[in-house]
Amino acid sequence: MSSNSNSSHNKINFGKYLPKINSPEDLRKFEPSELQEISQECREFVIDMISQNGGHFGSTLGVAELSVALHYAYNTPYDKLIWDVGHQAYIHKILTGRRDLFHSNRKYKGISGFPKRCESDYDAFGVGHASTSISAAAGMAVARDLNNEDYKVVAVIGDGSLTGGLAFEGLNHLGHLKTDVTIILNDNCMSIDPNVGGLRNYLTDFTTNSTYNKLRRDIWETLSRFDNEIGSTARRVVRGIEDGLKAALTPGSFFEALGFRYFGPIDGHDAEHLAKILSEVKQLPHPKLLHVSTVKGKGFKPAEENQTKWHAASGAFDRVTGDASAKSKQSSPPKYQDVFGKAMVELAQKNKDLVGITAAMPSGTSLSMLRDSLPEQFYDVGIAEGHAVTFAAGLATQGFHPVCAIYSSFLQRAFDHVIHDVALQNLPVIFCLDRAGFAGADGPTHHGTFDLSYLRMIPNIAIMAPMNEQELRDMLYTASLYKSGPIAIRYPRGNATGMDVRQDFEKMDIGKGEILKDGEDIAILSIGVMSNHALQAADILNAEGANPLVANMRFVKPLDTNLIDAICERFPRIVTIEENSIVGGFGSGVLEYIQSKQYRNQVLTLGIPDRFISHGSSGELYQEIGLDPASLAKKILEFSHSEDLVGLD
Amino acid sequence: MSSNSNSSHNKINFGKYLPKINSPEDLRKFEPSELQEISQECREFVIDMISQNGGHFGSTLGVAELSVALHYAYNTPYDKLIWDVGHQAYIHKILTGRRDLFHSNRKYKGISGFPKRCESDYDAFGVGHASTSISAAAGMAVARDLNNEDYKVVAVIGDGSLTGGLAFEGLNHLGHLKTDVTIILNDNCMSIDPNVGGLRNYLTDFTTNSTYNKLRRDIWETLSRFDNEIGSTARRVVRGIEDGLKAALTPGSFFEALGFRYFGPIDGHDAEHLAKILSEVKQLPHPKLLHVSTVKGKGFKPAEENQTKWHAASGAFDRVTGDASAKSKQSSPPKYQDVFGKAMVELAQKNKDLVGITAAMPSGTSLSMLRDSLPEQFYDVGIAEGHAVTFAAGLATQGFHPVCAIYSSFLQRAFDHVIHDVALQNLPVIFCLDRAGFAGADGPTHHGTFDLSYLRMIPNIAIMAPMNEQELRDMLYTASLYKSGPIAIRYPRGNATGMDVRQDFEKMDIGKGEILKDGEDIAILSIGVMSNHALQAADILNAEGANPLVANMRFVKPLDTNLIDAICERFPRIVTIEENSIVGGFGSGVLEYIQSKQYRNQVLTLGIPDRFISHGSSGELYQEIGLDPASLAKKILEFSHSEDLVGLD
Repeated sequence: MSSNSNSSHNKINFGKYLPKINSPEDLRKFEPSELQEISQECREFVIDMISQNGGHFGSTLGVAELSVALHYAYNTPYDKLIWDVGHQAYIHKILTGRRDLFHSNRKYKGISGFPKRCESDYDAFGVGHASTSISAAAGMAVARDLNNEDYKVVAVIGDGSLTGGLAFEGLNHLGHLKTDVTIILNDNCMSIDPNVGGLRNYLTDFTTNSTYNKLRRDIWETLSRFDNEIGSTARRVVRGIEDGLKAALTPGSFFEALGFRYFGPIDGHDAEHLAKILSEVKQLPHPKLLHVSTVKGKGFKPAEENQTKWHAASGAFDRVTGDASAKSKQSSPPKYQDVFGKAMVELAQKNKDLVGITAAMPSGTSLSMLRDSLPEQFYDVGIAEGHAVTFAAGLATQGFHPVCAIYSSFLQRAFDHVIHDVALQNLPVIFCLDRAGFAGADGPTHHGTFDLSYLRMIPNIAIMAPMNEQELRDMLYTASLYKSGPIAIRYPRGNATGMDVRQDFEKMDIGKGEILKDGEDIAILSIGVMSNHALQAADILNAEGANPLVANMRFVKPLDTNLIDAICERFPRIVTIEENSIVGGFGSGVLEYIQSKQYRNQVLTLGIPDRFISHGSSGELYQEIGLDPASLAKKILEFSHSEDLVGLD
Repeated sequence: MSSNSNSSHNKINFGKYLPKINSPEDLRKFEPSELQEISQECREFVIDMISQNGGHFGSTLGVAELSVALHYAYNTPYDKLIWDVGHQAYIHKILTGRRDLFHSNRKYKGISGFPKRCESDYDAFGVGHASTSISAAAGMAVARDLNNEDYKVVAVIGDGSLTGGLAFEGLNHLGHLKTDVTIILNDNCMSIDPNVGGLRNYLTDFTTNSTYNKLRRDIWETLSRFDNEIGSTARRVVRGIEDGLKAALTPGSFFEALGFRYFGPIDGHDAEHLAKILSEVKQLPHPKLLHVSTVKGKGFKPAEENQTKWHAASGAFDRVTGDASAKSKQSSPPKYQDVFGKAMVELAQKNKDLVGITAAMPSGTSLSMLRDSLPEQFYDVGIAEGHAVTFAAGLATQGFHPVCAIYSSFLQRAFDHVIHDVALQNLPVIFCLDRAGFAGADGPTHHGTFDLSYLRMIPNIAIMAPMNEQELRDMLYTASLYKSGPIAIRYPRGNATGMDVRQDFEKMDIGKGEILKDGEDIAILSIGVMSNHALQAADILNAEGANPLVANMRFVKPLDTNLIDAICERFPRIVTIEENSIVGGFGSGVLEYIQSKQYRNQVLTLGIPDRFISHGSSGELYQEIGLDPASLAKKILEFSHSEDLVGLD
């Protein structure tokens, strides 16, 4: 326990091997027969750590043996190891020099919950979004060939990530390139929620493939009619044919069609065997795919039994029973995602045209509530945001009113589909962007800090952001009545305000904001949950003797230009606040409008600066960039007292 | 010829059937045996029309029989027919009431070169970008099922579009949905340029599949050793096995893995047989794929012989020889794409780290020049923009300097990949965005009018736009020396200025603009080719007695803030001009900066308004939205004389 620098982590079980493994080089000194025990120690270490701190969980436990076997069989970091998505890479991090930092996993200024190039040479490619690993591997392999080097390139991709179109594009290109890359298909029949898709059925069904079984039966029956001697020769022939048929009808054929040599499926929980197979597969040139079967949550009973729930642990829990610790159990306001999920069910019950669509995130978006109540109005399309949007467009052409519930940063994957398939045809599709603003511990790959900018430039779309759960409900209701074109609602990760919520819905006027608090000295225009910060900042300012107006704008597009006109007439100085990039976002929209009217008001746009922000709690990140109420108040006060204006008049 | 309303089209050969077909209903009155002749008449009509007006060409000729057979076998528009990409849908348009409008194809205010929902009920889904048809079909089929209707849904997709990840996402979901949809795989072994990818090899190679052939030989050789009677029984058995094997090893298995029933490949140039097969396939429930072999450019010899060149005809040509007409042959300045292609070769010859990447557009981007000169530094990844970018990121991690040459509107498909895989890791990838600004006759799906907005919000990226071919060369050179992170160059479709160009390259200072013309009354900050319009507008203004400064800003990010500071000190009024959406674009960047400094200058941002702009020549579109020099001069004059400022000070 000596290397446990953080005394609060007092239950860490280092075991026999782990203290001796500070890098994969150390790992490679052990015998193959010891790999299973090492894997188990890694697993225990992760259970200990996550049971105290929370974090992604199930997928890492599922690849304990694979992580150990990969670093054993390959010469990392010379050989390049790429983890798709990356939340399964905890044991990879533990084995690559980050064991003693692991208590800081996903914490502010701590190590990232995902592989990150700037964190370690062993993190060959930074990840977070799904399905990128094969494309990145193709790039590295081509670079190797051009440089006449001989390192190996390995991508580990889950069967869920394989449903993303990018993975297929990568497979298709790599099959064409014919160069040496190994794809490990980590097949646990799950992404976060159970997987969907034709390919999934195929991977599952091959052992019971009816064509194969029928053919096999027919052949043997026919041959039984021959006499013994000739029959046995024929049976030998047929056995050969059978092998060919099996190869053709098992998952191999899909990948072999794309130019891959296929191996597997093999047991992903036998570390020694895995290491042996990997070191053999490694020798073969050309693109190849090794199909490994794993169990998500392996080794932690509660996680094996409920894989979706245990995809990640939000807080501490008992390392045996899985029960949440007292602190984690504290009751708190509902999450925004649950407010959405519940409202969606209420509205869809009365409106059969409303159809919910998720891209493999029924739990994360709480659209699972719709699935459980009204399954015929629910579609999970797999990790396939582009398809989700174009599929919604198809539904909308036939009179339906689809609701695409997609995280803000994941909708970036469907940017063109929103423009080309929805907005250009002005189809009534509702976009519900969860995790808008900071995504907390998940960090920059998951922060939803661009959506107001990337949606605002799109013609025909309306964009709303609620400041609390009541508004989220009313906005969803408003969207459900809006058939003039696409409309988006963006709301944050985490808990809502805990306010009392009306049971019934109220329609909002499109493009109308509201004044939350009148004032005299300066006007604050805020959007979304930042309106709460604006009110708190106003309280601080009041104490300082300033009296700002606070307007909750509700709509980023169309802007409430009447309200802005009125405010511009009364207030020489205006502040905008948003939890989005200040480049091209809500504040820029206000600037563009004020400029178009040639108003002379001075505007200060506050939001997320033009750089990628690391992981941490929302509170920590707000403070870092000055979006917490106290910092806002300070900036607003400075602005209201600032020198009267540089430049020409 | 009576219905040819446009007298200038005097060679139109209507033939025997075409004058009688004003809708698919008319078509369905003919006998199946007449379909081939009807197809041929359609083909002749297209050759006549395109030889006079230009337009997409090869792909439409390849689907003459298929277009006729589809409208014959299906009850359009009740049955939904979706064309992927859509530039192959000319005969579809001719058969669906637009024959007499066809002379206006792709002309300003004329019919669109792509299916468009607002143009006809027969255009079930608007298209332009590749790979959307299967997703849209899935949406329509689900809508049908939910509504208990019984229309059929058919998507026609080329083998090229099948390499797009979206197509795979659609197939995967549809295979899971198990509902009645027919996918027609129009396999001409080409997208615009010859196709690449593992799947392409698979589709091509199945007839010579070595596993299959070897197995087959072994079996028959073994059986020849049996005596006649038993041998013949065995041969019967083996023949059955052979069928199974063939099914498993032909293209069927790929699609059947995804949950489709596979039929084909069948001859796509036998209209009667096609119609018969279609009406049979139509009866089957569940997802199914019909593989149709066609020849791009079929029936027009020059196009059959050079399919890439004849993907589209840019102007009039001789309908027999294919020779360009005198008018089309007029010598003109080089195209921007060729300036890029040539500079790329010059730079890549000296710098082996530069690697060019195209997503199935070697001709359209002129990266074909690199392919032909330095094939080892060239990669065509298929229609797969997302993969192109992430593949580039992989290359960049290993020290290469990839150049992604992708049309501006197609890079929208890779928006997340630019953010998540390139910018977040701050990798040195060069993005060359062709067709930035208006794409002319291709219309709104192809206009590149958002890139300055969608790139500008991305941290770490630099963005340039050249005003002429000299600057394009120097910017590419500058980018090739820039290793601090991603950098983008956006330039338009069409001809450059025709200026004399230096042979050698000159490095530009990152973030530095230049004053093209000093002035006194007002300052114009322009970006890209709009700097030429700005100069012309300045000439007009000079004649009116005004004397504007014109600055060619060159960089949208980082902005030349020193230059803006200096200009703000001298000029109370500033105009920005860009061929990009005014929402979040270059002008907004200038506004954001001026606001951040609390300058009081009045700014007028001119650019593309917040709506989708239809097709037409650039000149027509400039006039429509006021970006031509005369309109610009008028607006600038009005602005410089405008009332002194509303609102509070």
